[in-house]
Amino acid sequence: MTTVGILGGGQLARMLILAGAPLGLRFVVMDPAADACAGQLAPLRVGDYRDEALLAEFATEVDVVTFDFENVPAASALWLSSNERIAVSPHPGALATVQDRLSEKTLFRKLDIPVPEFADIRSCDDLRAAVVRMGTPCILKTRRLGYDGKGQFRIRQPGDVNAAWQALAAQVEQAGLILEAFVPFQREVSVVAGRSRDGEFRAWPLTENWHVDGVLSASLAPASVPLETVELAYGYAKKLAEHLDYVGTFALELFHCDGRLLANEMAPRVHNSGHWTIEGAEISQFENHLRAVTGLPLGATRMRGYACMLNWIGAMPDAKAVLEAAGGHWHDYGKEPRAGRKVGHATMREDSPEALIQSLLKVADGLNRQAQVLPVVDALRRDYGF
Amino acid sequence: MTTVGILGGGQLARMLILAGAPLGLRFVVMDPAADACAGQLAPLRVGDYRDEALLAEFATEVDVVTFDFENVPAASALWLSSNERIAVSPHPGALATVQDRLSEKTLFRKLDIPVPEFADIRSCDDLRAAVVRMGTPCILKTRRLGYDGKGQFRIRQPGDVNAAWQALAAQVEQAGLILEAFVPFQREVSVVAGRSRDGEFRAWPLTENWHVDGVLSASLAPASVPLETVELAYGYAKKLAEHLDYVGTFALELFHCDGRLLANEMAPRVHNSGHWTIEGAEISQFENHLRAVTGLPLGATRMRGYACMLNWIGAMPDAKAVLEAAGGHWHDYGKEPRAGRKVGHATMREDSPEALIQSLLKVADGLNRQAQVLPVVDALRRDYGF
Repeated sequence: MTTVGILGGGQLARMLILAGAPLGLRFVVMDPAADACAGQLAPLRVGDYRDEALLAEFATEVDVVTFDFENVPAASALWLSSNERIAVSPHPGALATVQDRLSEKTLFRKLDIPVPEFADIRSCDDLRAAVVRMGTPCILKTRRLGYDGKGQFRIRQPGDVNAAWQALAAQVEQAGLILEAFVPFQREVSVVAGRSRDGEFRAWPLTENWHVDGVLSASLAPASVPLETVELAYGYAKKLAEHLDYVGTFALELFHCDGRLLANEMAPRVHNSGHWTIEGAEISQFENHLRAVTGLPLGATRMRGYACMLNWIGAMPDAKAVLEAAGGHWHDYGKEPRAGRKVGHATMREDSPEALIQSLLKVADGLNRQAQVLPVVDALRRDYGF
Repeated sequence: MTTVGILGGGQLARMLILAGAPLGLRFVVMDPAADACAGQLAPLRVGDYRDEALLAEFATEVDVVTFDFENVPAASALWLSSNERIAVSPHPGALATVQDRLSEKTLFRKLDIPVPEFADIRSCDDLRAAVVRMGTPCILKTRRLGYDGKGQFRIRQPGDVNAAWQALAAQVEQAGLILEAFVPFQREVSVVAGRSRDGEFRAWPLTENWHVDGVLSASLAPASVPLETVELAYGYAKKLAEHLDYVGTFALELFHCDGRLLANEMAPRVHNSGHWTIEGAEISQFENHLRAVTGLPLGATRMRGYACMLNWIGAMPDAKAVLEAAGGHWHDYGKEPRAGRKVGHATMREDSPEALIQSLLKVADGLNRQAQVLPVVDALRRDYGF
């Protein structure tokens, strides 16, 4: 019997537990919040990730540790994995590299993975000079601890420099700052992929993503891009995973721009843009993550039809329209509603693009969520010629 | 937030919890065994089903009660549902009817659902006379509390009557006895179906089943039988569900015999022959059971490809051969091994019968389980002409 420890007890931990129970795995979750939603399905240890006494106790309860959250302090992961205390997967070095946007993008460059222009920003003067060099629009971001659009300021014109600096200057010491060129992309896509302990690499079909205010709103799989683009994306993901000796599921977000792919960021964990794999792929990103970190062979990443995931932010909508759609699958994370919080998602799965369009149109109407759903419908119509 | 109480904490409760968590449901389980495997995923109340104090406490914790086990005392279910204490679904009357093979078969007859010949047995003289009338082989069974071939004695020749009586006479008072004619069937099939609170009826594709020593060994879906046979089976299931005002998932086991269908028994719960629906159907038997008992609309029961479920009895085999097969899905119930115990299953899912055959052959070889797997392969070859 193998027990998996998860640092972070949110919806990703929850979906890992649901995928891992059929593999005979047990789980223990650690989270600072006593109401972390994964605690509904497994024992929850409540405390700070930097509490070494708690970490030590946690380590005695489990056989391997993984994460549901990339901002778990890398130092905590390192402490757990040091002195052969407990296996930590993915390993803390990979976590540390991608937690910092600057070291992450530097690595992309080193591996010949194209990236948008970027600059290390340590002062307002740095920022001013970089904005002049890069042009506008561009985006000032914290190097660390940002996710879902948090810790970002979009600079639309040179005159925004002071406002951007004021908004984020307080972060320059603790989190660091990076300026990134804005990419006028045609599509945002992501590769969700997994790598096993013995180096096997498997990627799910490429996913097209729509963000609203920096937060994922919808994902569509497979993304309708040329085969060579898919293979390019897979190649980048594989290079990264091999370089980092990564074990587990991860996501690489890319901008598809005039036939080129530019890497945006890597998430060292199961990823929101891979939630559709629960119903839309043979084996889900959650199951393969657990197979990888427990040393089992990876499962098939092939599609089952066409899938679109819709995120529910803030509060759950009424389930009826989704439950009544033939290919509708509901995911309520068991969280209290809160503005901006990811509280659930739905995945619509159908055997053809036509059926998926019909299904999405019904959900858009039923939930009065045209703004969220119609961009996906438009993409399907454009890609498949309806 | 709805909390579902489940009487019985075995693998069916466990799979109900895994299917229900994404619907936002919470669970509390009651079972006499402190190590009931569903207790790994939800709070477990340990005690006797007839303990009214415990039942009363259980009722305060949940919004609706259902079962993972048809032999929960009908009196306990009735007690819970009386005086508007708590909603119990399916209702105790349905449970009581099908818990007794004699009342069940009498109901089948009343509803014009063909059944093999049967006789109420209250004495050795009854048995002797019925065996003469019915001919051999035939099967003496307890009316109540039998499952998985327990409480049965096969009478191969008239001379076996005394041995059969000796084996089961002690049960005549408590459980009652029934003699059933042996049916020389070509296939055993089952309809797994669900009915919602407002009377909507949905059945999954017909399943062909193989039993070994009275215990399900393998299931294949869809069963390759003529459409009119499928519709006949659906008609029987629907009639039964409507008559019983049944709410939830149930299974009707049938013998397919010279183009006719004869009803064997109804299981008033999610059923082992429907486990393949987790990966092989759009919405599983577990999710639809929960949708039904919590008043949500039923989901689509359509197939996703071709699926075969293989039961693991006694102990789990090595997972590798199944995990390495493209369409292999593993289900370890988290139980201690024990002779005769259902400890897990695998479902092989593929998009074509050919691929399913190849996948099954690999698993048969990898696990050295030819005897369990080859009958399914033979059926696929026969049905699809390979």
